[in-house]
Amino acid sequence: MLYFNQNLDHFTFTPKSYMTFQQRYAIDSKHWGGAKANAPILAFLGEESSLDSDLSAIGFLRDNGPRFKALLVYIEHRYYGKSMPFGSAEEALKNASTLGYLNAEQALADYAAILLHVKEKYSTKHSPIIVIGGSYGGMLAAWFRLKYPHIALGALASSAPLLYFEDIRPKVGYYYIVTNVFKKTSERCYNTIRRSWQEIDRVAATPNGLLILSKKFKTCAPLNGSFNIKDFMDSIYAEAVQYNRGPSYWVTSVCNAINANPPNRKIDLLDRISAGVVALVGNRSCYDTNMFAQPTNNNIAWRWQSCSEIVMPIGYDKQDTMFPTSPFNMTSFIDGCESYYGVPPRPHWITTYFGIQDVKLILRRFGSNIIFSNGLSDPYSVGGVLEDISDTLVAMMTKNGSHCQDIGLKSKGDPEWLVMQREEEINIIDSWISTYQKDLQILKS
Amino acid sequence: MLYFNQNLDHFTFTPKSYMTFQQRYAIDSKHWGGAKANAPILAFLGEESSLDSDLSAIGFLRDNGPRFKALLVYIEHRYYGKSMPFGSAEEALKNASTLGYLNAEQALADYAAILLHVKEKYSTKHSPIIVIGGSYGGMLAAWFRLKYPHIALGALASSAPLLYFEDIRPKVGYYYIVTNVFKKTSERCYNTIRRSWQEIDRVAATPNGLLILSKKFKTCAPLNGSFNIKDFMDSIYAEAVQYNRGPSYWVTSVCNAINANPPNRKIDLLDRISAGVVALVGNRSCYDTNMFAQPTNNNIAWRWQSCSEIVMPIGYDKQDTMFPTSPFNMTSFIDGCESYYGVPPRPHWITTYFGIQDVKLILRRFGSNIIFSNGLSDPYSVGGVLEDISDTLVAMMTKNGSHCQDIGLKSKGDPEWLVMQREEEINIIDSWISTYQKDLQILKS
Repeated sequence: MLYFNQNLDHFTFTPKSYMTFQQRYAIDSKHWGGAKANAPILAFLGEESSLDSDLSAIGFLRDNGPRFKALLVYIEHRYYGKSMPFGSAEEALKNASTLGYLNAEQALADYAAILLHVKEKYSTKHSPIIVIGGSYGGMLAAWFRLKYPHIALGALASSAPLLYFEDIRPKVGYYYIVTNVFKKTSERCYNTIRRSWQEIDRVAATPNGLLILSKKFKTCAPLNGSFNIKDFMDSIYAEAVQYNRGPSYWVTSVCNAINANPPNRKIDLLDRISAGVVALVGNRSCYDTNMFAQPTNNNIAWRWQSCSEIVMPIGYDKQDTMFPTSPFNMTSFIDGCESYYGVPPRPHWITTYFGIQDVKLILRRFGSNIIFSNGLSDPYSVGGVLEDISDTLVAMMTKNGSHCQDIGLKSKGDPEWLVMQREEEINIIDSWISTYQKDLQILKS
Repeated sequence: MLYFNQNLDHFTFTPKSYMTFQQRYAIDSKHWGGAKANAPILAFLGEESSLDSDLSAIGFLRDNGPRFKALLVYIEHRYYGKSMPFGSAEEALKNASTLGYLNAEQALADYAAILLHVKEKYSTKHSPIIVIGGSYGGMLAAWFRLKYPHIALGALASSAPLLYFEDIRPKVGYYYIVTNVFKKTSERCYNTIRRSWQEIDRVAATPNGLLILSKKFKTCAPLNGSFNIKDFMDSIYAEAVQYNRGPSYWVTSVCNAINANPPNRKIDLLDRISAGVVALVGNRSCYDTNMFAQPTNNNIAWRWQSCSEIVMPIGYDKQDTMFPTSPFNMTSFIDGCESYYGVPPRPHWITTYFGIQDVKLILRRFGSNIIFSNGLSDPYSVGGVLEDISDTLVAMMTKNGSHCQDIGLKSKGDPEWLVMQREEEINIIDSWISTYQKDLQILKS
């Protein structure tokens, strides 16, 4: 693991902006073809998690390093993992004064500085860099190619919901897809879930209702309201769909559990729902209904980002979903963030600065070399770029793909379509690199 | 004149970043073809001066507004004219803590916010915007198209020394061109100037030498050293070349004065040099040797910019110039800025963020719709993009053009080549707009 002395603030020149912090990154040079050959660099741009987890989960670099003879670089996002400004996570995550430097523009500038540093360190001015990222990191990869084309030759933006801002896409899209995957997996399961919300509320309203619910769902702590269970189940279903892939296929597991009729035991609707939890989370002595929203450093940092800049208006509009109706309300969202942090979000900034909303009109004649890959069974795909824009701005979709599946580790059991998708991605990147190498030869001669 | 409530800092979300200031801009809508026709917007991006002076000097918008049926927008740069953060120029220009928010990235984001605001105000979502600027403002125009292609369809970057950073171009280039224009105008004049520096030093070193010099140059204040005169003359020659155009042709005037042999009077070398000053500045009771570096608000603000981000390494290397040798020394430049402001410049940031240095390799397959116009008799042209990059990234050069001449006011006496240059610029912009309008029709149908 390496550390880079990074500027706190790239976009002002106040004395405070000169504060620095140690940003973590990693390099794997064992397959690199060297500076003389201008051998490429594959750079993973970290998202809202620690580099440790990325290093074990991201396969695209490791699996393809030898083929590209590439230098592999992994960079941790500021304010995550060990890349903490202000000396400690406690200070960095304290309030808007310290969190204020946590945003996408600063993160992109961090990546620019580190990648230029790596090129200098390896004395390889002309090695093309391909940036890779998933989800929020996929947005960063696409944005990086658009804003720093002189540093990254191209980008693989996996499951990047670049268009899930303001009113560009239907706000209900995320949960519409969650619903559809459940429905397709089992109509009966879908119907059970659909009916469950009212039942949770009904039970909660009875005498000792919360106690009954708590017992039924084996919660570790007493409940404050039916919303504890409902929010928990919401996350269970979303998680199951986002990562619904082999060998386990979570939606199938959850639905099998929900649909099952155990012998010699009478079960009711909520027993079925609770069985779904066990199927996804595993057998535990008790269940923490807050398990998806623990105040970990990562979650605290991401909550700030989604309450300042990355305002994705995901809602439950009255439409064909299996969830209770609850549209996204921007005004109350803004108020909530402002009362929590003391500063309001700037929900228009992403579209002002990155402007992907008019992707077809604008990028058709501007920009190049981005793969927007999306699995259409991933709820976030509703925010993805789902059409080819030009010869080199390419949308790649798979019907059954889940969230960021293509950049995960290769495995023997991978379905044929996934193997083919990755192969196609590699071929496209290969063609960018060889065009670049030819351009370079012409310029040098 | 209009004012826009602008964010102090677009790139952090600290409580302080939410401070706002009133940014001045102006709109002329009398020729506009309207939202229904998606009639275009010509937007002038202000540089390091007050909007008042731009409004009177910039002709490109006024002269071409009717032809394009364009809405004309002029925006003042933050920290110049009346667009002062922190309530007053005194506060804004005080020190690095307040000046720190004065930089190109923030200025571009300001322009983005105002242009989106104007489009909303005129309910014209799809009107294409062409941004125009000169010198530093020309860099801003080119950078704006590269960073905000979804807001500006194209840019006319007049006399923009985009490549005068780090070691991209010869540091002596500016003064090499100054020299050449003088030499071409009059070899004798050039030789006189070339010999004058030593003579100034020689006289200064004699008893009462500074007094003698002061008298010879009719300086308003006593001299602190020969450098007062030398720096002054340096600016006189540079200014004369930068704005050497009809009807007055300053270099010719200055050289005529330097070469003249007044009847009935014996004159020496320094009398000739002094006559050059009178020719450029006019007949005055005395001459302020500091006239080009007065601590006006504009100069204070620009000094900060050139000591923080816009570090253009203009030097006097030992080469064929008419100036004394004095190479640009980055280390002492950095030290000087740091001791003055308490923070050092970041001389690599422009190339990191904008990366125009590899213009041929990178922009050949990325970006579109920029005219880089340069007069080759303008000293700043040494930092210009002087080759076509692609069909729509076009270098336009004129042999005799001076600094920002093409975007100045049209006049009856304009030389044929200038008329043709402007015509060609208009045709290129026209073609961008009509391609865009066609794209728009296809997308809508």
